[in-house]
Amino acid sequence: MADRPIITLLTDFGLEDDFVGTCKGVIKRISPEAEIIDITHGIRPQHVLQGALVLANTLPYMPVGVHLAIVDPGVGGTRRPVALRGGDGRVFVGPDNGLLLVAAERLNGVEEAVELANESYMLHPVSATFHGRDIFSPAAAHIAAGVALGEFGPSIEPDDLTRLELPRPEVAARRVRATVLYIDRFGNVQLNLTSADLAELGIVPGTTVEVEAGFERYYAVAARTFAEVRRGDIVLYEDAYRNVALAINHGNAATMFATAVGEELRLSAA
Amino acid sequence: MADRPIITLLTDFGLEDDFVGTCKGVIKRISPEAEIIDITHGIRPQHVLQGALVLANTLPYMPVGVHLAIVDPGVGGTRRPVALRGGDGRVFVGPDNGLLLVAAERLNGVEEAVELANESYMLHPVSATFHGRDIFSPAAAHIAAGVALGEFGPSIEPDDLTRLELPRPEVAARRVRATVLYIDRFGNVQLNLTSADLAELGIVPGTTVEVEAGFERYYAVAARTFAEVRRGDIVLYEDAYRNVALAINHGNAATMFATAVGEELRLSAA
Amino acid sequence: MADRPIITLLTDFGLEDDFVGTCKGVIKRISPEAEIIDITHGIRPQHVLQGALVLANTLPYMPVGVHLAIVDPGVGGTRRPVALRGGDGRVFVGPDNGLLLVAAERLNGVEEAVELANESYMLHPVSATFHGRDIFSPAAAHIAAGVALGEFGPSIEPDDLTRLELPRPEVAARRVRATVLYIDRFGNVQLNLTSADLAELGIVPGTTVEVEAGFERYYAVAARTFAEVRRGDIVLYEDAYRNVALAINHGNAATMFATAVGEELRLSAA
Repeated sequence: MADRPIITLLTDFGLEDDFVGTCKGVIKRISPEAEIIDITHGIRPQHVLQGALVLANTLPYMPVGVHLAIVDPGVGGTRRPVALRGGDGRVFVGPDNGLLLVAAERLNGVEEAVELANESYMLHPVSATFHGRDIFSPAAAHIAAGVALGEFGPSIEPDDLTRLELPRPEVAARRVRATVLYIDRFGNVQLNLTSADLAELGIVPGTTVEVEAGFERYYAVAARTFAEVRRGDIVLYEDAYRNVALAINHGNAATMFATAVGEELRLSAA
Repeated sequence: MADRPIITLLTDFGLEDDFVGTCKGVIKRISPEAEIIDITHGIRPQHVLQGALVLANTLPYMPVGVHLAIVDPGVGGTRRPVALRGGDGRVFVGPDNGLLLVAAERLNGVEEAVELANESYMLHPVSATFHGRDIFSPAAAHIAAGVALGEFGPSIEPDDLTRLELPRPEVAARRVRATVLYIDRFGNVQLNLTSADLAELGIVPGTTVEVEAGFERYYAVAARTFAEVRRGDIVLYEDAYRNVALAINHGNAATMFATAVGEELRLSAA
Repeated sequence: MADRPIITLLTDFGLEDDFVGTCKGVIKRISPEAEIIDITHGIRPQHVLQGALVLANTLPYMPVGVHLAIVDPGVGGTRRPVALRGGDGRVFVGPDNGLLLVAAERLNGVEEAVELANESYMLHPVSATFHGRDIFSPAAAHIAAGVALGEFGPSIEPDDLTRLELPRPEVAARRVRATVLYIDRFGNVQLNLTSADLAELGIVPGTTVEVEAGFERYYAVAARTFAEVRRGDIVLYEDAYRNVALAINHGNAATMFATAVGEELRLSAA
């Protein structure tokens, strides 16, 4: 009996300030029936790529609904605010800076896209710095309340939407240069690799793997679960979202490698 | 169809501990129908003025409901717990330390005020240190469930409620001493100035502004949006809540100025 | 009219990442009617004892419902995922590592326990590292939607559930060695003592108490409320959950004592 519309939120607003709360107030004033699910507000400030990847990872676990995402370094500039309708009925709302498209394309593609241009669905005056409150949240709430996408503004060709460049690993015969995509609370280090990339390097569960971080070298074990290795061992594994990641059993891998999002690690079978 | 009562929450409890969760449990046991909107729990611990200003900034964006706010350094002492009814049907619940009144007066004034004295609407035993759980949350929940304000205790004359002293800027002919009211996640620095104050100083969009922070001097540009200035420029602008603020386009102004809430900055047209 | 089932959440996931949001999405896909209350996600990573104590402290304030708790350093290993039904209709879901049992036993004991073994109530593939998403959240949601515990897997004798060793204070005639159980946002330091322990040491409100932390000595006053002492005084008091705690009136006791969870403090009447 899912009669109440779902709006999911993903932002880089953090929870220290009132930004998220204010957006929720705006949504509930327009669409009192909407139920809001916070995916996360911990995206690194203004890090569009991280927001796009987390949205793509998590959306398959969310009910079908309106998916509002705001990581928007270009607020107040020329980037367009948009809404996209996917093949399975999901609607994405956010800035046209690449944030939404990775998720939309991994799910069912984009069937309809519009620019959020109709001022009657905005709060007035529209501020120059908080479109989350004045443009995006009202649009998401009106869509949840049943307003058709076509009401919001002119159509956009899906091919004209802004696309992000995803960092690709450089796989050589025996070694790969990977990029750190994400570091979580537990210090686990997510890389831009799939288990197919590892297979190409001859890395399978049980293989000892050399990891170079800066000028330091470490030895990890490829494994399926932390339980297969000893406390303190470095583990190379496929994480719950099917990304290859490095962790330390009962430890913090990010601290050990002194690495950060966007930095490079080099891996090879030892 | 907003048939479910709304309770908004603003506290200095943070989200590391269970304080917020416990208050929510208490509310939902008394008023299962209530919907809770978190405005923020990131108010600086025990910083009543900051709580009052954030409540006043954000409440216009919230649905009409019961507005529970708790920043309460005097818990267990003699300050009264109160509930206030505003002109538009909003009800404010919290300590009588000035926290609620800035918001109530900016909206529609206070029509009725009572002391929360009736012990049958409290949890027992009433702890000495967590009135949020034992007095304020139960009161908010009972009000949301329909109990009239008069049931909670004796009336208070609105004029007898505690008022905060708001820091006023010192505007001289060509220079203003402003106080930092708030610093957000992005390092934007909100000042106790309005654009009317700036106009008096001859500062309009496009003006170069000298900012003194401690013994250091910086140059900012007055602008309407970040998009009008270059990456790394310091911007003086009216923020989304109509407060004058300083920011660095793609940077962190608070770190650059090494400033903090309550400190002074001096501004003049250069 | 509490016709909507309640699911409470307590985890060590923090709110920076998407772990909590993903679990909520999973729950709402299975049980759209469920209402979720976050108790806290700020349990120290992998600190099962802290999670167990916070759950036991807070659950009396929560509506009867499904109480999902996840602090799970053994994920992917041999510890069993379980669901427990308590005497008052509460159902606990989480890992069988002691996390749930302190709360269940302080309330109404365990009447029924099952292992979560039925794969038709899991998400597939079941990841090795995120049972919160793939096993625990689906189980909690199905239980909230009305599935009987017996459907999930084989019964477990309540006596066979894993029990935590709670740290006991060493009370001598005139001195007690206490352990720090928890430090909250305000720097208040919760100890593994009750007011009965203090009474045994001759400590009553008004008594001056010597506190040894490391090689340093401090003097505290036993009091009922902060309002009884002066600003800056160290207070020994019974906190809102009936644990004995140390605080500094308008200050941060944890910083002053340079102490941390798991460390020892020694107290005696001065």
